[in-house]
Amino acid sequence: MRNNTNYISVFFLAMLLSTLAFAQEIKHPHVILTQKAVADIRAELGKNEILDNSFNSLKSEIDRGIKKPIDVPIPKDPAGGYTHNQHKDNYLNMYGAGVLYQLTQDKAYAEYVKKVLLAYAEMYPSLGLHPIKKSDTPGKLFWQALNDAVWMVYTSQAYDCVYDYLSAKERKKIEQDLLLPYANFLSVETPEVFNKIHNHGVWAVAAVGMVGFATDNNELVQLAFNGIENYPNETHQKAGFLTQVRELFSPDGYYTEGPYYQRYALLPYMLFAQAIENNKPEMKIFEYQDKVLQKAVKTTLQLSNTNGQFFPLNDAMKGMSYLATELVTATDIVFGQNPQDYSLLAIAEEQKTVILSEAGLKVAKAIAEKKTQPFVWKSAEFRDGNLGNQGALGVLRSGTGKGEQAIIMEYASQGMGHGHFDRLGIFYYDNENEILQDYGSARYVNVEHKQGGRYLPENETWAKQTIAHNTVTVDSTSHFGGKFKEADKFHADSYFFDISTPEIQIMSAKENNAYEGVKMQRTIALIKNKELFNNSIIVDIFRLESEVEHTYDLSYYYQGQFMHTNIDYKAFTTSRKALGTKDGYQHLWLEAEGKSTEKMFSLNWLNDYKFYSLVSEVNDNSQMLFTRIGATDPEFNLRNEPAVIIRQKAKNHVFASVIESHGSSNPTTELTQNLSSTVNKIETIYNEKDYTLVEITTVLGKKISLAISNNTSDKTKKHQLKIGSKEYTWTGAFHLFVK
Amino acid sequence: MRNNTNYISVFFLAMLLSTLAFAQEIKHPHVILTQKAVADIRAELGKNEILDNSFNSLKSEIDRGIKKPIDVPIPKDPAGGYTHNQHKDNYLNMYGAGVLYQLTQDKAYAEYVKKVLLAYAEMYPSLGLHPIKKSDTPGKLFWQALNDAVWMVYTSQAYDCVYDYLSAKERKKIEQDLLLPYANFLSVETPEVFNKIHNHGVWAVAAVGMVGFATDNNELVQLAFNGIENYPNETHQKAGFLTQVRELFSPDGYYTEGPYYQRYALLPYMLFAQAIENNKPEMKIFEYQDKVLQKAVKTTLQLSNTNGQFFPLNDAMKGMSYLATELVTATDIVFGQNPQDYSLLAIAEEQKTVILSEAGLKVAKAIAEKKTQPFVWKSAEFRDGNLGNQGALGVLRSGTGKGEQAIIMEYASQGMGHGHFDRLGIFYYDNENEILQDYGSARYVNVEHKQGGRYLPENETWAKQTIAHNTVTVDSTSHFGGKFKEADKFHADSYFFDISTPEIQIMSAKENNAYEGVKMQRTIALIKNKELFNNSIIVDIFRLESEVEHTYDLSYYYQGQFMHTNIDYKAFTTSRKALGTKDGYQHLWLEAEGKSTEKMFSLNWLNDYKFYSLVSEVNDNSQMLFTRIGATDPEFNLRNEPAVIIRQKAKNHVFASVIESHGSSNPTTELTQNLSSTVNKIETIYNEKDYTLVEITTVLGKKISLAISNNTSDKTKKHQLKIGSKEYTWTGAFHLFVK
Repeated sequence: MRNNTNYISVFFLAMLLSTLAFAQEIKHPHVILTQKAVADIRAELGKNEILDNSFNSLKSEIDRGIKKPIDVPIPKDPAGGYTHNQHKDNYLNMYGAGVLYQLTQDKAYAEYVKKVLLAYAEMYPSLGLHPIKKSDTPGKLFWQALNDAVWMVYTSQAYDCVYDYLSAKERKKIEQDLLLPYANFLSVETPEVFNKIHNHGVWAVAAVGMVGFATDNNELVQLAFNGIENYPNETHQKAGFLTQVRELFSPDGYYTEGPYYQRYALLPYMLFAQAIENNKPEMKIFEYQDKVLQKAVKTTLQLSNTNGQFFPLNDAMKGMSYLATELVTATDIVFGQNPQDYSLLAIAEEQKTVILSEAGLKVAKAIAEKKTQPFVWKSAEFRDGNLGNQGALGVLRSGTGKGEQAIIMEYASQGMGHGHFDRLGIFYYDNENEILQDYGSARYVNVEHKQGGRYLPENETWAKQTIAHNTVTVDSTSHFGGKFKEADKFHADSYFFDISTPEIQIMSAKENNAYEGVKMQRTIALIKNKELFNNSIIVDIFRLESEVEHTYDLSYYYQGQFMHTNIDYKAFTTSRKALGTKDGYQHLWLEAEGKSTEKMFSLNWLNDYKFYSLVSEVNDNSQMLFTRIGATDPEFNLRNEPAVIIRQKAKNHVFASVIESHGSSNPTTELTQNLSSTVNKIETIYNEKDYTLVEITTVLGKKISLAISNNTSDKTKKHQLKIGSKEYTWTGAFHLFVK
Repeated sequence: MRNNTNYISVFFLAMLLSTLAFAQEIKHPHVILTQKAVADIRAELGKNEILDNSFNSLKSEIDRGIKKPIDVPIPKDPAGGYTHNQHKDNYLNMYGAGVLYQLTQDKAYAEYVKKVLLAYAEMYPSLGLHPIKKSDTPGKLFWQALNDAVWMVYTSQAYDCVYDYLSAKERKKIEQDLLLPYANFLSVETPEVFNKIHNHGVWAVAAVGMVGFATDNNELVQLAFNGIENYPNETHQKAGFLTQVRELFSPDGYYTEGPYYQRYALLPYMLFAQAIENNKPEMKIFEYQDKVLQKAVKTTLQLSNTNGQFFPLNDAMKGMSYLATELVTATDIVFGQNPQDYSLLAIAEEQKTVILSEAGLKVAKAIAEKKTQPFVWKSAEFRDGNLGNQGALGVLRSGTGKGEQAIIMEYASQGMGHGHFDRLGIFYYDNENEILQDYGSARYVNVEHKQGGRYLPENETWAKQTIAHNTVTVDSTSHFGGKFKEADKFHADSYFFDISTPEIQIMSAKENNAYEGVKMQRTIALIKNKELFNNSIIVDIFRLESEVEHTYDLSYYYQGQFMHTNIDYKAFTTSRKALGTKDGYQHLWLEAEGKSTEKMFSLNWLNDYKFYSLVSEVNDNSQMLFTRIGATDPEFNLRNEPAVIIRQKAKNHVFASVIESHGSSNPTTELTQNLSSTVNKIETIYNEKDYTLVEITTVLGKKISLAISNNTSDKTKKHQLKIGSKEYTWTGAFHLFVK
């Protein structure tokens, strides 16, 4: 912590004066819950199913919680320990009791909040920093100040709800002995967190801003808006909430760590923004920066499979979805700003609960009025970087609803410390099912048996490594040598992204820094042609350029049961070995290896009663490795899932493949249909610096060709390419030729 | 085929006369659909959702089918070939069109049926046996007579539906040139099928009986009831439908092949029984043999997890469930007999369709009237063998509805050629999830890529073998040496089955023939005690007696992700080997092996966000083998799933274990609870010829003991056992001591 005691004292005095001057003027509650919302919710209770469920579930939880003796222990334990959990329970119970006091007018709830607040006010002045010295930024009640900020975000709302119930004397004690000094601690006494453009900083700012509103202290609110102004920030000129809004999200509302962390980061943004909207509507915070806060929520919702589960980019836990409480709050608040956006109601219906506020009430009423429309999943490119110029995440979808397919390509920046070395990696979903999976993180959150629930060692040695992803690993070494600092310097680049026609949606991206002297470009097209294919097909063209020979490994983590391959292979049936010794290869069992004599490799597999095929162009030099995750895993931490790796020694090379969902089996009728791919082969007809052209032949002998301009993605540029006697002409970065 | 031409000719003449004499007397339709049902269904159509859906789905399918040109090809192809599929389509379309003619009165449907029937009547007299000579019992239209019988079951209903539409001349041609000679072929010309007590025989009998009703030919109906009376049956005195009803099901309605095959076998029984009920109600066929036909349906429904999927006993495909069309028909027909059994409506609602008959109408109306009650899954013992004395399948459930647990023990007979060598094997479900799995069969039905969809070689080498099941393999050799003929001579025996108190449901069975000189007894108890355990616990006591030393392998195919074990083990992390060379051991990879120094082995795993534990008593001699299916599997036919094997060298031995579902994690809140078992240890306190007593200690130090009398299961017998200074007294085969 920096030595800036003088500054702190002066500021603290100003804060105290500010509060005393304005305290009596505004009617409480007004931070998140408002007087009007209280009246409106009370009028609606008993008539509205989702509102009643939300209310009853909060009530039964809080009734259970406040029955126990009040317990405000001296902070002692780390995360998961007794005092940690008790302080967490206290803020959740205070928050819930505060809301219930307003909605039921039952004084027992207010009395509970008062007693707990006074107990904290009694203890707080005697507290030093938390005794567990594990964090760079220790808190008071918790081992890290982040948790203290969360405590304050909830407690400030509780205080706001019981404000009118408290005597002036009680308020004075609580504010002067607890809330204001605590806000002081979270801001000027911890400036390196408060001024940070990072989700920990957002929590601190939201905490201070919300307690500012709750105590009618404009000084604190301004501090939250602007940061500590004369504090020497290291990496940026300004600080505070508005800067955080501008800098942490891309113009498309994408957060560089990916949706799993974005979900978590959103909560303080949305709560504080709602408080600002309620108290300083003239700021139009939800319109700020081209509505980026709303975009951040909508983008998080979009980055999900059709079951609502987030794409597991970077260190993500699979299963986390838009059903999470953070997304309940965020979805409701965004609907509150857009009460005609009925597609958000579909999400709220799946969530089965609303927040008890004006926004939540709007959601509940609109659902009861049967306004719900299906949520629309879109094909879209989500740019990364606060200026939108650090690559992107591209998402192509075969349609907008449940039951459709989605293919995602990652060509963004590294995604901070939780980023994976997965440039140009793809994920493919059919409805809610992962067909080509991204492993996600190697972790079992909060499972004590698994290293206390922390990231497992295999998260570093496996999950982050390039070979764990559906992309190319060069010379058995991860992108950027697996070094975060190197990777953090570069981002991949969007080359083109075009969803203007339903016949072909296409995205292309380049990554030229992951390996020295190797240029990588991947183009993914989703092609719809009912005459030729059963479903949309995915064309995957991974182009590599190098002046020297390398070993290129393109891995596909197909999910499901192997059905068939066209190639001859040798299976290691009675003993098997790990594929390598480092960069993730040590975690793969080599199950079989083979070669093709037909310049074509096909793999057919079954997933959830549906059949899928990968059809890839190969040559005499190509080697197919059938692998399974699980080697060098003495603690059984990894999921034992299969992959195929196409290995190629070459200088310049194109991996051209088609991935297709083509058939199904029915477990109760036992009927099967379309067991085999409609694609017979894919061939690279031309591949030079200027153009790449691949041709796809169906089993019925029909042909389509896809041409890509490698040097310019100008939409108006005309191209001409003569291959043998055949001439191809087109305009723009790509063209699909259907004969 | 036997040479009994004279007999055939005489019978055929009698049949013809019988038909001509009674043909005009009864109003059609009356076989399955009746005149009354037609009127009632017509009145209900347009008002009843499930009925309308069933009608519309049949109509759109048949409208599509009858648009095509009529095609009655000369039989030529095997199963799956063009003529095979066309004759199958023809009977399905005729059946559907017949029903639709009655329900819509649209003559286009009747006209279609007439034309197809006349085309068959034209062709039939010229047909010899089917040219594909692959079956012992070839048919006429199909390669095996079984398919011809199915053709007749459907076609007889179609004929019945259009009977009144046809002219007398048309009827005469169809009956004399097609239906009667075909019925003759399926009965007296193929007596070895017709008189067989086997599901092929049931189809033949139902076909002949139903065409008898459709043509008002009592001779044929009697033939179906009684079989060919003076035909020298090889294995039984009588034949025909009534004998089949008596002999193919046990008194509890259990079919020895298991529910996957029982589902298929049920259809001809239920259809012909419905026809008998409609036409000879005085026979009370559904009351026959203590209502065994109804029991057969209800037992099939009971043998399912709470998602309706059948327990995969013997050669079963997982995923087959009571949603299968056979069970739609069977469930509706049973409800038709018991229109107050509202719990069957819960099944019908999940099926989302009803049959278009009086029974189906009753179901549809009752659902519309909101009579549906939850289906009640029961703890029950289902005896095997037509006298109920060939062992049984025992099912214990923690409750009657969705979300409950079930543990199943297999102590029946071998189950004919599709039987597995799995005596005393168990299956454990938590709700719909397999927690201790039975592998089922190694097959991908109708998947051409996988050996044409037939049983895979691994079905013999793996799925049938003892080590593939949750039971004990002795000296690495399957039960009965893996020899069907030996296994078929013996069945296991129920020792006791007691579900009289909810605190302890318990079953015990013995198998003394699987290995020479080794006696096996397994006792499974489901114990409910909310003070001691989170959920019901399962106690598993597997007792072995032998005068010489053997190696006993008790395998548990736990499903899910390994979380934790208490023992030290050596993991084979960079290379691994198959566990053995034969009897299924060649298909297991050895992943790790370990020993316990604490006389206790625990394994904790995660399945569908829930935590499970196995806690087993072990000693210094016990070896724990962690394995995974998938070795010696060059075609990738097997699912790569884990198991733990507890290996013990001993003469007499008791494997005592507790299996417990105790906790959960939530993917969106990331909260976890009750990660660890409530059971600390299980110990065998006493194990002699007369008694076995085990003691379970919870992590809080509470103890319960389970005593088992090994020699008599007499419920009134008093027992006294002194162990050290402690005296245990109880009455009956077992007792649970809770201190």
